[in-house]
Amino acid sequence: MKAEMIAVGTEILLGDIVNTDAQVISMGLNELGIDVYYQTVVGDNPERLKEVLDIARKRSDLIITTGGLGPTLDDLTRETIAEAFGKKLVLHKPTLRRITAFFEQIGREMTQNNVKQAMLPSDCKVLANDWGTAPGCVFEADGVHVMMLPGPPRECTPVFRTAGMAYLARLAGGVIVSHHIRIFGIGESTMEEKLHDLMERSSNPTVAPYAKDGECLVRVTAKADTKEEAEQLLEPVVRQVCDQLGDVVYGVDVPDLAHAVAKVLTEKGLSLSVAESCTGGLLSKRITDVPGASVFYKGGACTYCNEIKVKVLGVKQETLDRYTAVSSQTAREMAEGIAKAYGTDLGIGITGYAGPDGGEDGTPAGTIYIGIYDRGRTQVRCILSPRGREGARWEAANHALDMILRAAEGRKQLL
Amino acid sequence: MKAEMIAVGTEILLGDIVNTDAQVISMGLNELGIDVYYQTVVGDNPERLKEVLDIARKRSDLIITTGGLGPTLDDLTRETIAEAFGKKLVLHKPTLRRITAFFEQIGREMTQNNVKQAMLPSDCKVLANDWGTAPGCVFEADGVHVMMLPGPPRECTPVFRTAGMAYLARLAGGVIVSHHIRIFGIGESTMEEKLHDLMERSSNPTVAPYAKDGECLVRVTAKADTKEEAEQLLEPVVRQVCDQLGDVVYGVDVPDLAHAVAKVLTEKGLSLSVAESCTGGLLSKRITDVPGASVFYKGGACTYCNEIKVKVLGVKQETLDRYTAVSSQTAREMAEGIAKAYGTDLGIGITGYAGPDGGEDGTPAGTIYIGIYDRGRTQVRCILSPRGREGARWEAANHALDMILRAAEGRKQLL
Repeated sequence: MKAEMIAVGTEILLGDIVNTDAQVISMGLNELGIDVYYQTVVGDNPERLKEVLDIARKRSDLIITTGGLGPTLDDLTRETIAEAFGKKLVLHKPTLRRITAFFEQIGREMTQNNVKQAMLPSDCKVLANDWGTAPGCVFEADGVHVMMLPGPPRECTPVFRTAGMAYLARLAGGVIVSHHIRIFGIGESTMEEKLHDLMERSSNPTVAPYAKDGECLVRVTAKADTKEEAEQLLEPVVRQVCDQLGDVVYGVDVPDLAHAVAKVLTEKGLSLSVAESCTGGLLSKRITDVPGASVFYKGGACTYCNEIKVKVLGVKQETLDRYTAVSSQTAREMAEGIAKAYGTDLGIGITGYAGPDGGEDGTPAGTIYIGIYDRGRTQVRCILSPRGREGARWEAANHALDMILRAAEGRKQLL
Repeated sequence: MKAEMIAVGTEILLGDIVNTDAQVISMGLNELGIDVYYQTVVGDNPERLKEVLDIARKRSDLIITTGGLGPTLDDLTRETIAEAFGKKLVLHKPTLRRITAFFEQIGREMTQNNVKQAMLPSDCKVLANDWGTAPGCVFEADGVHVMMLPGPPRECTPVFRTAGMAYLARLAGGVIVSHHIRIFGIGESTMEEKLHDLMERSSNPTVAPYAKDGECLVRVTAKADTKEEAEQLLEPVVRQVCDQLGDVVYGVDVPDLAHAVAKVLTEKGLSLSVAESCTGGLLSKRITDVPGASVFYKGGACTYCNEIKVKVLGVKQETLDRYTAVSSQTAREMAEGIAKAYGTDLGIGITGYAGPDGGEDGTPAGTIYIGIYDRGRTQVRCILSPRGREGARWEAANHALDMILRAAEGRKQLL
């Protein structure tokens, strides 16, 4: 089954909002094993919507629209679709009662324009909206299934995930299951070269590489009649991807480096503190993005000037004078200093030039030292990031998380 | 001029990522006065991309594509577009040198597949990418302008906002000038009510309100033949917006609260430190997002457990026992403690329940106290954020920045 989505809303074309509905629906269709080939956004304009519908019905078996179901003048999706597919709009009384009750509940008067939200294509299945006024609906015409969903994400998501997906599950048959292999330490092109043959010869499961935020990801996806069969297809391929990539694989089905760190430190009962200069709190923020981080994370210090590095972390003035604040020696003393001050098993020290400026001695922007103290032993990694201030800071935090993971798991540090 | 966007990327159709590039480009085109009628997403599939291009070239004067310019097998945008518009791909030597230098700088070997990123349509204008490897480009064929941009948002945004928009501004004729009025402390609907009449009667300049990340923004945009004429049109309207909104306006043409804080503290010669519990380093990170923050920012402490609050900030054990860590009293002692420990004019203390859990005493998730120490005086603001863990942390940081701004400017604190 081939599906496509049409979002109706001038506010998306103006850049006022992002089309997040498309993501939610795509993910759901993917789970159901329905292929999504196109997403289109069109304004609140009946002629252009009609034109887009004409294109879509020729190439897809399922069209899902979002938006344009509200009570105002520019909400035209229902009328335009009904006309395009030769359907009459008829009053759906249970929906009208529901809308009336909704207004009673919030204590506001129902204006007359709200009635049009209860005018639905004849013979459609109504998709109840318990999160707002306009219901969704779905019908079949000329061999095409057409589903209309409300636009506001907090209505669209639950209506789709409940009534919408239940309808589609009955149509689709079969399941799709994916596993995500997380990689840090090699680039996308190297990863692809290593997996090239495997990708070429895999059709079910498929093997697809992605790169995002300085990490890489391989998604392995299988289609089958049941979840069990899909898992059986997946198992050997996931293992093969992990084997071929080796030591840079840091997890399967974990969301990111910070979650992997949280999982491992919690399991191993190790405590952590971090001292940051150029990353300015980003590493601490990313660690505490994970709910429950307080189990292993004692806290951090952002030491943005030399006097605080000396005072709070006990970095030696002599070290700063002799090697400067951006040096392997300073990173080492920061890592050791925070672990001692906060009484933790592991300590991180990050110091560098995030940019736009580098050092007065000619050290380029993007030069960053990351020290890790691990129960008595300290090691330092140096990176040179070409990705600008924000990118360099992000990358340094990635490397610090990778070093924490390697320390906690007893894997070799890449220095 | 009618424009449309085509995003090329199976990862969008699978719901792995949201098409945020479309928003960035739509906003830019809107600023330039170029109408956007369609956005389409298509997978990494040459036949379907070709089909989408055929539809687009018939109905639009400008096609902007994002994605599919990378080095891997499934990056097919360049080849497919060149073929569709009868262009040859030729090696662009300066681009190849740039890519080679990029790999040298990061100390990784350049694999052969990277070369194809330097193969560009003949007679195109290259849009330099200083944020990654694949450049953008733009050409005209059969009366249609076709612009290709890299997909990763942190490359797409700067390439489009610099080289891309400069090219389009020349096509569009005339100039467009905008001013951005930044607001913190009222919601979007209140702001719209206050500006409703002004928005209704303004056509040039236009007055457009936006809400994002817990802040509000009014963009005032004028079209004219010259920059001077545009500025003359803008001046009285910007003044009127500021007058009508009053005390909640914190700046004009500053990027965000953190930049406003950096500007004011630098000008006034005031120093700052921050102590964070539930925000976990986010505030420190946002302050140090601004280049040059080291002039006023001494550093911060993330005190993620009680023992560190006592040890590093000197919060009294008695205070924690009596009022708990999430209390006005603790926020106050954290603010005073960090200012003393780091020797700064201003100090911030943030403590709260970011969620998903609230306090054991029934205090709801999203309850956050923010204390500010300002040269001898301490005040505390309490917020209750309904926006979930990430949203609550972001909102708390916003409030802290607003309190710093108000302290530095001698404006009244809203408590």
